[in-house]
Amino acid sequence: MSSPSYRPIGPVVGVVGAGQLARMTQQPAIALGVELRVLANALDESAARVIVDTRVGDYRDLSELREFAKGCDAITFDHEHVPTEHIRELAADGHAVHPGADALVHAQDKAVMRERLTAIGAPCPAWSRVAEPGDVERFAAEHGWPVVLKAVRGGYDGRGVWVCRDAAQVREAFQSGIPLMAEAFVPFERELAVLVARSPHGQGVSYPVVETVQEDGICVEVIAPAPMLDSEDAAQAQRIALKIAHELGVTGLLAVEMFETEHGLVVNELAMRPHNSGHWTIEGALTSQFEQHLRAVLDLPLGSPTMTAPYVVMANLLGGDDPDLFKRYEHVMAHDPAVKVHFYGKDVRPGRKIGHVTALGKDLDEVRARARHAAVYLTTGEYT
Amino acid sequence: MSSPSYRPIGPVVGVVGAGQLARMTQQPAIALGVELRVLANALDESAARVIVDTRVGDYRDLSELREFAKGCDAITFDHEHVPTEHIRELAADGHAVHPGADALVHAQDKAVMRERLTAIGAPCPAWSRVAEPGDVERFAAEHGWPVVLKAVRGGYDGRGVWVCRDAAQVREAFQSGIPLMAEAFVPFERELAVLVARSPHGQGVSYPVVETVQEDGICVEVIAPAPMLDSEDAAQAQRIALKIAHELGVTGLLAVEMFETEHGLVVNELAMRPHNSGHWTIEGALTSQFEQHLRAVLDLPLGSPTMTAPYVVMANLLGGDDPDLFKRYEHVMAHDPAVKVHFYGKDVRPGRKIGHVTALGKDLDEVRARARHAAVYLTTGEYT
Repeated sequence: MSSPSYRPIGPVVGVVGAGQLARMTQQPAIALGVELRVLANALDESAARVIVDTRVGDYRDLSELREFAKGCDAITFDHEHVPTEHIRELAADGHAVHPGADALVHAQDKAVMRERLTAIGAPCPAWSRVAEPGDVERFAAEHGWPVVLKAVRGGYDGRGVWVCRDAAQVREAFQSGIPLMAEAFVPFERELAVLVARSPHGQGVSYPVVETVQEDGICVEVIAPAPMLDSEDAAQAQRIALKIAHELGVTGLLAVEMFETEHGLVVNELAMRPHNSGHWTIEGALTSQFEQHLRAVLDLPLGSPTMTAPYVVMANLLGGDDPDLFKRYEHVMAHDPAVKVHFYGKDVRPGRKIGHVTALGKDLDEVRARARHAAVYLTTGEYT
Repeated sequence: MSSPSYRPIGPVVGVVGAGQLARMTQQPAIALGVELRVLANALDESAARVIVDTRVGDYRDLSELREFAKGCDAITFDHEHVPTEHIRELAADGHAVHPGADALVHAQDKAVMRERLTAIGAPCPAWSRVAEPGDVERFAAEHGWPVVLKAVRGGYDGRGVWVCRDAAQVREAFQSGIPLMAEAFVPFERELAVLVARSPHGQGVSYPVVETVQEDGICVEVIAPAPMLDSEDAAQAQRIALKIAHELGVTGLLAVEMFETEHGLVVNELAMRPHNSGHWTIEGALTSQFEQHLRAVLDLPLGSPTMTAPYVVMANLLGGDDPDLFKRYEHVMAHDPAVKVHFYGKDVRPGRKIGHVTALGKDLDEVRARARHAAVYLTTGEYT
């Protein structure tokens, strides 16, 4: 680890992890005069390429975290993998860590999350801790097949989730050896997400409810606001998310993924950081989720979440077979001078999130088509 | 000089100079996946704080410029002080330098600029090269007092300009010993600016005409679009700016400062880089001037200059007596959650441009008041 060669002028925010979320946080940090520091695995990671004060170290090592935290006005995270007990130690040292361990554990441990959400009355699917296949069969006898088995810790982007239709598939899932929990399968109409921010002194702000479109468990498209959503349902979704943030004591951003079902909303997952479902806010809201997160972790007044256009659509860029994205810039920019392209400074690997595009406008079908065209062309070279 | 420890993935753009313009260019560079490199005077300069590939060196030294340029896909500038002949040498070495020497000289040398603008029929005040006070007196005999004397090279923000009302003041201006030129004083109604971009293969784009408000020769406020501007005058201003960009072979951005007078528009100054009169575009246009400049110097299709709100007002933050801006963050953010604050990572010195604020909205008076309030409060702590 080494210090930068300059004296900070603004507040210093340390981000553990140097992926695209930390990278995109540098954009508002530049404007706010916030000096970002990241803890990276390597100097060529996404955020390390654009943040001068990059320290290479292991987020699983408490002494390295302590060294990293020295001189930071606040500590936050690019991912949810820092051991809960290390976060407690940093707070005990006197550091302002946001979100804190007591909140973050709900985004790290799905069973703890379900217990707590059930206790505060947030709508959840039927669920149970399970230790062996027999537990799952008893759960299925009560709630029916299929049963969704989830890794209690560490799953993301569809990994760590098994949709089991019978006992044989359950036994197969248990072969992984990792701790699992069971949830009833939710027959949903679509997936929604609500992004809220909460500051340490308790101010809360909610962005509009969005629709997220997944393929193979990976988010491919986000539509803001969620089209045709009943205004009472939208308000309820925002109330649920703000209540979770308040009850769990979240500081910083909280993304609440929900299912819209015939019988109402059901909470699916929580994330406590800037989230893929909020990338549209960079151009689509007066305050981007990345700026909002910085304001929240520094306990500054939160910014306006007002949208800048009637509809905003974000489409993820997933790596394809061709590693050279840049040669396809020209077509996309010439075809649509108003589409916004975001690259994450990552080498292309099939299926990897390497960037996203955003389109804004008044006509939802047109905006979706523009975002889709740019995303498909950039990743595959195909003209849609 | 040293290389960064990572291999670039996107195109590399080298920016000579590490002030706030290079700093703000890093925001869209992060999105575009463009890898910025800056040539700084010191590692604590505004842009050096947020750009990993910062090289410290002297832009007046050709061998250092050559070392800096190695591996860049394009070279551009944060300021206009690089010697014209060095730019020619870099181009002769095979580098893509934008703007090129033949264009940039018009932003470096005011007499060359006036000669050329006169030749292409752009509206200019009466002007003359002058070698001694007697030349100015003869100029005044023809065009009247006051006479504006300008440093042929190197003036900015009101420095290098003398408004002389008599021969004694002329003799005083000549005491500086620097080469001067004379211009007739233009009795203007207000000052306007037009920002255009031109790419190497000749695509041109103009932003809306803005009004700039100066105090003591320093821009304090920019209003987009210029209020109550006759649409034919606005179109003419854009035509003049695009014509200058085309005739001078500008690549990248060109800011044309104009006077609006009783008898029409008069060109005042040119700048060939992102410009203070275009900072409002960061939030106020679909493509910011900084992204537009990157697109232009990489010869990519230009982005849409469409405004994101009916009115956008930018107010500069000029350093006051109190060095601690950050403690006043809280009031400004709480008072107006939609105002956008930009700090340049510079120590506060009285009169120094240390940042700017931007407000957007439908009601011009309200938008101006919001921007003004935030700027005054941040710099002086006074509540307006």
